[in-house]
Amino acid sequence: MTPQAPTPAYRRLSVEERRSQLLGAALDLFAHRAPEDVSLDDVAEAAGVSRPLVYRYFPGGKQQLYEAALRSAADELQQCFDEPREGPPMLRLSRALDRYLAFVDQHGTGFSALLQGGSVVETSRTTAIVDEVRRVAAEHIYRHLGVTGPGPRLRMTVRMWITAVEAASLIWLDEGRQPPAGELRDWLVEQFMAVLTVTAGRDPQTAALVGALTGEG
Amino acid sequence: MTPQAPTPAYRRLSVEERRSQLLGAALDLFAHRAPEDVSLDDVAEAAGVSRPLVYRYFPGGKQQLYEAALRSAADELQQCFDEPREGPPMLRLSRALDRYLAFVDQHGTGFSALLQGGSVVETSRTTAIVDEVRRVAAEHIYRHLGVTGPGPRLRMTVRMWITAVEAASLIWLDEGRQPPAGELRDWLVEQFMAVLTVTAGRDPQTAALVGALTGEG
Repeated sequence: MTPQAPTPAYRRLSVEERRSQLLGAALDLFAHRAPEDVSLDDVAEAAGVSRPLVYRYFPGGKQQLYEAALRSAADELQQCFDEPREGPPMLRLSRALDRYLAFVDQHGTGFSALLQGGSVVETSRTTAIVDEVRRVAAEHIYRHLGVTGPGPRLRMTVRMWITAVEAASLIWLDEGRQPPAGELRDWLVEQFMAVLTVTAGRDPQTAALVGALTGEG
Repeated sequence: MTPQAPTPAYRRLSVEERRSQLLGAALDLFAHRAPEDVSLDDVAEAAGVSRPLVYRYFPGGKQQLYEAALRSAADELQQCFDEPREGPPMLRLSRALDRYLAFVDQHGTGFSALLQGGSVVETSRTTAIVDEVRRVAAEHIYRHLGVTGPGPRLRMTVRMWITAVEAASLIWLDEGRQPPAGELRDWLVEQFMAVLTVTAGRDPQTAALVGALTGEG
């Protein structure tokens, strides 16, 4: 608002604090604009610091800043999956989805740009960061389901569902966050049970899991 | 095999034939290597022509050739979805999936690189080509299901399933084409019915559709 009075810079921040502040400002900008429409000047202005200072922290320029912001968002996203191993597994999944949808809601455009690719700042490194989040999400799911050594059919089912959830998130943002997050969450959980049940007809490991989840095992 | 004797070049081809030949050679290379590992020299050698000839047809170089090859693959992929409007809709879906999986099998690495993004040749134009194929796939599905004016819940369900099918295709290639194509096809059709049935519990339009599909409507 008032770039002449960059109040946040008056306080002397530690290196870590300054880095966090710059990443926070960058994430905030990426949340509302596509990465290619965000300049280092924008980040400097939003953080109330000089452009050279941004370059001092991110000498690789925008690409480095984008990757660091993405890494920071990925860490935050992975925290959404942290859920105590208590109560019915599908209730735990619901709670993790609540946090995930809050994350999607908050990061909006930046989340879309990241997943949809085709961005000028998309590289094999950014793709690897996203793939890592997917891998971690799948592992959380196996852990909560009490599955060790998931076989190929169960793995394919879980990975397909995770991809479908991402697609749902992008459509949800596109459609003005409709249906409401709570309804979308329940719908996604029901879909997960439905596709597990389909796979149960083809895979004994998944059949045992579905039996346990529905209390018949 | 014998680049010294480029027999295909001996015959004088029309402009259209030559263009098709070069695109065919490029697609063949992209099917086995990531786009960034294919050079114009490789394409020239595979087609048995000189590098300048490749440049004459694709003056924009590799990026233009890649986009043209992608466009040609997208056209071929869309032909997979052409299916007469006869017989039970789920049987038609099975037949379209058979052709789709044959396409995935044939294009292998090129298909993965395209969908996974993160390639150096990925741009907003290539993303638009892929999105267009998804859009066409969804429209074929609505037409075969006899749905006009799909509502938001049915649309989200169909788009999520299409994304899940893409994910399954990539995993399928990764895992040495396991399970066999016929099993994967049946499994995907069952998943489609399962997620439609879940949505039917939340959406009257989908409920009517599922009723009709299961003969209870």
